[in-house]
Amino acid sequence: MKNEKITERDVDFAQWYTDVVTAAKLASYSNVKGCVVFEPNGYALWEEIQKLLDQRFKETGHRNVYMPMLIPENLMRKEGELVNGFAPEVAWVTQGGQKDLDERLCIRPTSETLFSDYYASKVRSYRDLPMKYNQWCSVLRWEKETRPFLRSREFLWQEGHTIHETKEEAEKETLDMLNLYNDFFHECLAIPAIIGKKTEKEKFAGAEYTYTVESLMYNGVALQSGTSHYFGQKFSKAYDIKFLSRENKEEYVYQTSWGVSNRMIGALIMVHGDDRGLVLPPKVAPIKVAIIPIGKDEEIINLAYSYKEKLDREGISCYVDDSEKSPGFKFAEAEVNGIPVRIEFGKRDIDDGVITLARRDTGEKVTIGKDSDIITSINGLMEDIQSNLYNKALERRDSMTYEAKSLEEMEKIINEHPGFVKAMWCGDPKCEERIKEIKGTKSRCIPFEEEKISDTCVCCGKEAKHLVIWGIQY
Amino acid sequence: MKNEKITERDVDFAQWYTDVVTAAKLASYSNVKGCVVFEPNGYALWEEIQKLLDQRFKETGHRNVYMPMLIPENLMRKEGELVNGFAPEVAWVTQGGQKDLDERLCIRPTSETLFSDYYASKVRSYRDLPMKYNQWCSVLRWEKETRPFLRSREFLWQEGHTIHETKEEAEKETLDMLNLYNDFFHECLAIPAIIGKKTEKEKFAGAEYTYTVESLMYNGVALQSGTSHYFGQKFSKAYDIKFLSRENKEEYVYQTSWGVSNRMIGALIMVHGDDRGLVLPPKVAPIKVAIIPIGKDEEIINLAYSYKEKLDREGISCYVDDSEKSPGFKFAEAEVNGIPVRIEFGKRDIDDGVITLARRDTGEKVTIGKDSDIITSINGLMEDIQSNLYNKALERRDSMTYEAKSLEEMEKIINEHPGFVKAMWCGDPKCEERIKEIKGTKSRCIPFEEEKISDTCVCCGKEAKHLVIWGIQY
Repeated sequence: MKNEKITERDVDFAQWYTDVVTAAKLASYSNVKGCVVFEPNGYALWEEIQKLLDQRFKETGHRNVYMPMLIPENLMRKEGELVNGFAPEVAWVTQGGQKDLDERLCIRPTSETLFSDYYASKVRSYRDLPMKYNQWCSVLRWEKETRPFLRSREFLWQEGHTIHETKEEAEKETLDMLNLYNDFFHECLAIPAIIGKKTEKEKFAGAEYTYTVESLMYNGVALQSGTSHYFGQKFSKAYDIKFLSRENKEEYVYQTSWGVSNRMIGALIMVHGDDRGLVLPPKVAPIKVAIIPIGKDEEIINLAYSYKEKLDREGISCYVDDSEKSPGFKFAEAEVNGIPVRIEFGKRDIDDGVITLARRDTGEKVTIGKDSDIITSINGLMEDIQSNLYNKALERRDSMTYEAKSLEEMEKIINEHPGFVKAMWCGDPKCEERIKEIKGTKSRCIPFEEEKISDTCVCCGKEAKHLVIWGIQY
Repeated sequence: MKNEKITERDVDFAQWYTDVVTAAKLASYSNVKGCVVFEPNGYALWEEIQKLLDQRFKETGHRNVYMPMLIPENLMRKEGELVNGFAPEVAWVTQGGQKDLDERLCIRPTSETLFSDYYASKVRSYRDLPMKYNQWCSVLRWEKETRPFLRSREFLWQEGHTIHETKEEAEKETLDMLNLYNDFFHECLAIPAIIGKKTEKEKFAGAEYTYTVESLMYNGVALQSGTSHYFGQKFSKAYDIKFLSRENKEEYVYQTSWGVSNRMIGALIMVHGDDRGLVLPPKVAPIKVAIIPIGKDEEIINLAYSYKEKLDREGISCYVDDSEKSPGFKFAEAEVNGIPVRIEFGKRDIDDGVITLARRDTGEKVTIGKDSDIITSINGLMEDIQSNLYNKALERRDSMTYEAKSLEEMEKIINEHPGFVKAMWCGDPKCEERIKEIKGTKSRCIPFEEEKISDTCVCCGKEAKHLVIWGIQY
């Protein structure tokens, strides 16, 4: 739990990331290749995120279900594009109960097939629509390179799957869920995301179009942080999801799916973390306050527990560290774990009638009267931290967002400055291919807030159709 | 949603069970053999159970983690008894990313191996102990016959895994968790369980001993509803989980595991359900109250929503059904779904200044003033329902519990009356084998509340060691 264990962020970002994951005890490599163990601190963060998102899903009329984790090969093959998209990266169960199976079963890489099959068996009439279901589960994709929370064979996520009577309603759902994610990123994760549409090349296999939440990490690398897909009738035709319409005609439903994953934990680390470890926005921090009495006087320990009682009563999660460790060690531990606020005080402070509140984001300390209204002080501090983290991330993102009008300019920017590049695009995937040659730069999205920074495609010089945000990705 | 869809419970219990699962929309068969879909009503019930148990786990110092779902064959094989116990019923992944794997991976049937491997890599000293972790996940066992919530290839559960410095502490944990389950069954599920120790023959593969929560269904069939295992140092020696003791010596940890699963939903159905469908104890009912206005007068609808507001404010989950369906249909729907309390009123009631509260368990109705304190009435009713359900189940269990002093008596009882049989046992597994010949009757447990009903084994006539509860099981 010593700070020296963490590599400096500006020296070696990848090593810094690994060090923070380890030092903050978020996850641990396992003896299962490509899979990590979510340790208590990491899983508590996931639970916090889950709780906040789940509430938003339920408030907007979604209900949770649970589908099987195995998908028979035949069922999987019904929608061609999806299979082709996922075939290279699935794991197959071929033996069960000591016998070879007649049909291979794949471990779900995503569950469009199962939801479609289920909906087909349930929907009869327009009165049954919409059906708006969500599932929290783990999925498996046979990735080669893995990094905790960013890319691993098994990961935790939620996948919403909805079916609707009309195109308009399904398209509205696709957009509503994207906005829900965007608000969550803004309000809870304190991450300024860019939302927009994926290009044809980058959209989800099987989708008519894909909306995306893109965020920028401290090192200027982009992270696709959430997606919302509009399927139109592609799956409903492949899986025969029909209903009797208001006009008493048989029609196919319109469908969406949307998901976010434990990548959000990776984003939190890489957007807010610093050389001392994790920094958590108060809204998603499983523990908001560390109370650290200095010394062992009964008076001091009692005061610590009296603060805990007050905070508990307000539902502000906290702990008292009255262990044998040194105060310095305890401070460092609270810091590496990203706990937003630390309360510290010793005998002399109490004699002076004061205690100190230290904020994790800036390291600033304020002194307040020991009998003053601690709840108001802490709530105020947490609000400040939450908005400061967002504003800092927004400033950084803006300062790392460039504009390019020619390919030369684009190459120069990408080679010199990590970050987002705004540039116009003609709509031709060949130009995306060409730009990918620059350190693997990809189109992140066509942002909803379109600007026109020139008339011609940054790559081929033909007439431009869209502004695109480009970047190197995780 | 018509009642006639549900077979009478006393006519065909198995069909009744299936009908209730379907009619209450708890689960649905899927096209994945042996796996069911948890539909919204079923999953909401699981979430409610999960929330209540999770809170109890956390209050007793446990923390949640998440382990990989795949276990490499080599890792699995380290503890011989466990492998032998589970080998016949695991599913193997042999292909991933379009290649045959060098080593097969099994989908977890339980996670002792992974927790042990993890603990071995983390524990250094007695200061790191105890480690008390839990995980909510799904596991897979290649069952041949499957029934929703009772036996299916994939099921949802929680598995707690803890390691301790001393035998005493680990044994205390094993017992504490059993008691926690028992209290939960009593207080929340309203199910009177019998707790005790499994015989050697029936204990968990790899455990030194197994405690169990056994409950009796309406039809007299027993359900093993939860288990808590003491492993001693079996796994710690197999997986090399060592620590430096207070005496600075290398020692192996003492270990436990404990789990309950979605079987609890099966138990709820089979203990409390009736010919009109599901009956839920208020403490675990996801929706506690159905508000059903009769007629479409604005005054009536407004009153319905004003009750909803009041209930919402108190955190009593409810819904207003002002749909086009007939009142009779709405009543039946609330009943089949097991909603504890129904509020109903029409124009005439309001003119008379009254509304009706109907309780699901007994069907009784009470009339209260429409402006009276509805919260107190509902809370009182819910308490009554909760304790009535428990008492009814306890009475039934006691009336279906028999005593046998000879094998002939035992055969006669089992052939004539479904239920538990109390009988003395010498401790020899051969006698368990013999008794199993009577319709598959097994020892459920050696109950903590031992009685001595005779001096000799019910089977062989030799000296008796223990009272055993026997029964036919799901």
